[in-house]
Amino acid sequence: MEKWRATSNLRRSLKSILNRQLSSVSEFRYLNEKRSCQSSFNLIRDCKSLGQVNAIQHRCFSSASTLVQRNPSFSTLNSDDISYFKGLLGEKSVIQDEDRLETVNTDWMHKYKGSSKLLLLPRSTEEVAQILRYCNSRCLAVVPQGGNTGLVGGSVPVFDEVIVNVSSMKNIISFDKVSGILVCEAGCILENLLSFLDNQGFIMPLDLGAKGSCQIGGNVSTNAGGLRLVRYGSLHENVLGLEAVLANGDVLDMLGTLRKDNTGYDLKHLFIGSEGSLGIVTKVSILTPPKLSSVNIAFLACNDYSSCQKLLMEAKRKLGEILSAFEFLDTEAMNLVLHQFDGVRNPLPASMHNFYILIETTGSDESYNREKLEAFLLSSMEDGLISDGVLAQDINQASSFWRIREGVPEALMKAGAVYKYDLSLPVEKMYDLVDDMRIRLGDLAKVVGYGHLGDGNLHLNVSAPEYDDKILEQIEPYVYEWTSKHRGSISAEHGLGLMKANKIYYSKSAETVQTMASIKKLLDPNGILNPYKVLPHSLNS
Amino acid sequence: MEKWRATSNLRRSLKSILNRQLSSVSEFRYLNEKRSCQSSFNLIRDCKSLGQVNAIQHRCFSSASTLVQRNPSFSTLNSDDISYFKGLLGEKSVIQDEDRLETVNTDWMHKYKGSSKLLLLPRSTEEVAQILRYCNSRCLAVVPQGGNTGLVGGSVPVFDEVIVNVSSMKNIISFDKVSGILVCEAGCILENLLSFLDNQGFIMPLDLGAKGSCQIGGNVSTNAGGLRLVRYGSLHENVLGLEAVLANGDVLDMLGTLRKDNTGYDLKHLFIGSEGSLGIVTKVSILTPPKLSSVNIAFLACNDYSSCQKLLMEAKRKLGEILSAFEFLDTEAMNLVLHQFDGVRNPLPASMHNFYILIETTGSDESYNREKLEAFLLSSMEDGLISDGVLAQDINQASSFWRIREGVPEALMKAGAVYKYDLSLPVEKMYDLVDDMRIRLGDLAKVVGYGHLGDGNLHLNVSAPEYDDKILEQIEPYVYEWTSKHRGSISAEHGLGLMKANKIYYSKSAETVQTMASIKKLLDPNGILNPYKVLPHSLNS
Repeated sequence: MEKWRATSNLRRSLKSILNRQLSSVSEFRYLNEKRSCQSSFNLIRDCKSLGQVNAIQHRCFSSASTLVQRNPSFSTLNSDDISYFKGLLGEKSVIQDEDRLETVNTDWMHKYKGSSKLLLLPRSTEEVAQILRYCNSRCLAVVPQGGNTGLVGGSVPVFDEVIVNVSSMKNIISFDKVSGILVCEAGCILENLLSFLDNQGFIMPLDLGAKGSCQIGGNVSTNAGGLRLVRYGSLHENVLGLEAVLANGDVLDMLGTLRKDNTGYDLKHLFIGSEGSLGIVTKVSILTPPKLSSVNIAFLACNDYSSCQKLLMEAKRKLGEILSAFEFLDTEAMNLVLHQFDGVRNPLPASMHNFYILIETTGSDESYNREKLEAFLLSSMEDGLISDGVLAQDINQASSFWRIREGVPEALMKAGAVYKYDLSLPVEKMYDLVDDMRIRLGDLAKVVGYGHLGDGNLHLNVSAPEYDDKILEQIEPYVYEWTSKHRGSISAEHGLGLMKANKIYYSKSAETVQTMASIKKLLDPNGILNPYKVLPHSLNS
Repeated sequence: MEKWRATSNLRRSLKSILNRQLSSVSEFRYLNEKRSCQSSFNLIRDCKSLGQVNAIQHRCFSSASTLVQRNPSFSTLNSDDISYFKGLLGEKSVIQDEDRLETVNTDWMHKYKGSSKLLLLPRSTEEVAQILRYCNSRCLAVVPQGGNTGLVGGSVPVFDEVIVNVSSMKNIISFDKVSGILVCEAGCILENLLSFLDNQGFIMPLDLGAKGSCQIGGNVSTNAGGLRLVRYGSLHENVLGLEAVLANGDVLDMLGTLRKDNTGYDLKHLFIGSEGSLGIVTKVSILTPPKLSSVNIAFLACNDYSSCQKLLMEAKRKLGEILSAFEFLDTEAMNLVLHQFDGVRNPLPASMHNFYILIETTGSDESYNREKLEAFLLSSMEDGLISDGVLAQDINQASSFWRIREGVPEALMKAGAVYKYDLSLPVEKMYDLVDDMRIRLGDLAKVVGYGHLGDGNLHLNVSAPEYDDKILEQIEPYVYEWTSKHRGSISAEHGLGLMKANKIYYSKSAETVQTMASIKKLLDPNGILNPYKVLPHSLNS
């Protein structure tokens, strides 16, 4: 507390910041994302017929052209297949209705659209097993589907694949209040699990914007990241066990509920993040942390990226055990949000700053954790890392800070055409890419940088009035080459899906990709599970 | 703070506990573990000749008989092989000296002994790759070896396998102070990494008793657990990347340094915990946490196991973000330590208690964290969960508490014959097994329970004056069947190695084990890497 007493002037200035009123921020309105995506959807519809085709070309949003051929070794559905599935699942779980198929054929951003003629709704692992056993014997391609909230075209058919949606498998199997271990079926919606756990005094170790729709099986299959990763770690840590059905219908029971288990190869990790291409996850066992009562959020400004980095390092050291988010946006991102949404105000309006940081802490002691965060902010101001800052006084202000950060994608959509890249990079290099891209693009487009600084995850976005090949040529393959050169990841959290299957070599070596393909071939020799996704098409077919 | 003021009597009693003198505890002396294992070593030497044999029978410590046949498809070394390796590595890295071979042929507990005629000491990934490429072409079996501190016979040859020891690969490649990411070669000794990081203000996310000898490549290959798992998670979370050499010499570069990377199957997890049977880990990238200044340790007593469980639940909730260890030992374990070591005193001598708990907290604020722990202890006493307790006043007392917990294995060794089981079980069931085993064994032997309660990891030990088949028959297969029935793990942290390769089915389903064997076959078709280990011998050969 010596520093606190020695810096009474700074303390006074921080106090005045803390007491600043933020009434206008609560006027922020969310966009209807589906509406804002409509123009892009129409663009896709122009590209191909909605019926069955043998080759489609995706040219949408920021992605370069991707030519996909239907794998001719796959069968097409016939009436015997339909009869079999009706006998197995009952009439109501075998969906051929065009309106319902329209929904499950289309991803939630309306960016990808398949032409499946059949949706199956199994209610048990055994039904999933029998479906796959049959499809494998008939060489019918299958798309596993959960909440269908993915961003890379992984959860919808590319052609006429049978859709196996696990939404009907939504039972909570067990919850152990001593260990915090939850076991449930794959179709449980994340928000329902959050509500269930809230009543038990626990939380899920992951939280996503899509929580109202996304399902735990899909979360696991895509290794979803989300907002709590910096605090609670990834699903590779928190998922203790899985049950998965292989392409041939074999059920792998890996549904352990143990924190430690060193008996053989830990195969569950193969299914975490393989986007349904190695098996369908049917049950999940997950370690959930206790709910902690104290949450504090600060919105800060830094003059340069170097200060952001140093602030992150200091936050890890001084807030270590209570730090639960460290997000950043640059001045272009803030300007966009302010420009696009009338109701939003900059919480730090005195002047425009180059970088904004959102810090969240979560702990078990309200007054202490707040004091701890205040002391950290004070010392960071004293060290010149922060040029201005404000601490949320209540839950509404806290939400308004989050909304600024979370509003960036919607603001980008409103602003016109947007080329989006979800990259992992070493923190010290991350912003160099944004600078480089600004130099390359000059007046052609605006370059916006924001993301999960605490996880080294940059969302690089290029915003322009309209899509223009000249812009795309300046971005790609430069952005992938740059990321590759710095040993970054071209997909930090969204996966590869259809969108980036052919770009895997920018982040993984040829030998590693070849080993992945061998494992795919081993577990799914006919390649029926989620074809055309994850691995390069040359290896998939 | 209301509770604190309302319970001034309890506060006074806690204060008096806190001030209790513990001078005698510092007299604790460590055993020389090697000396105490000598009798067991002799027992093994009686079982087989030290020369090359074609079948050996292990009957040692607590394990039931295990008959292993040498795989006849493996070649035996010839002079051309030696010439090749000398040409590749130089004379000094090709060891045929009998004394040096004696050391690397024997595990550190002197429980397992192979008869390898050749030790190779590669200095680079390329050398490892060339060694394996050659061995694979010649069908020469290989044992990957690091610090050789394993407990299940995984790191020494069973017959005449070539030993590839990576001790010479001990460079730190990079350390990033912003992200805390360390990249190093596999042969780095854990304690050296701890010292290096200490100077940088960081720690390793794992810490082990064997840290002075064990190497990071071996830690990763065995998915070592250790003392910090409850706080920092397992190596599946903290290892961000790996480089591994496959049996055919192919190098898999998976050496990412990213917290988030969803580009294809995350193959590194296959090598974490596969005990060198799928490839040799040559480089590791690991996320290291900042060093926090405040460590507090309490030694507590509980009257029953139910109170231990409730205390764990409360500790997770109330100490959540600072809890770094939650260990337990029962009264039999405490009695053994007190009986075997003259210098050790019970820190809670007023009366014998049924259970003892060691709680450690680690945080960034000394005074606050201590207050927090004191408040937790006070409320736990008030709730009747703790019957007595003491909080370490300085680092010596803290060490003395840890020494009691860590002294249990040595005390068991001193007491005579010991049958050891390292089990993961659901916390609520864990101690039932100890009770059941006491009923089964009656006066035949003492049953001792201790371990990492916070991780659900029980070390079940049966102590008797001497080894006796009657005792073993009462324990096995009962202990494995019991563990299996409760979906536990027969190896929480030690791995399967040679000792438990045939027992994998107690913890893993037949389909899962078959899939493991398929992956082994895919990555190591000739089965040259660490043969006879991890997977059942029927599938391995």
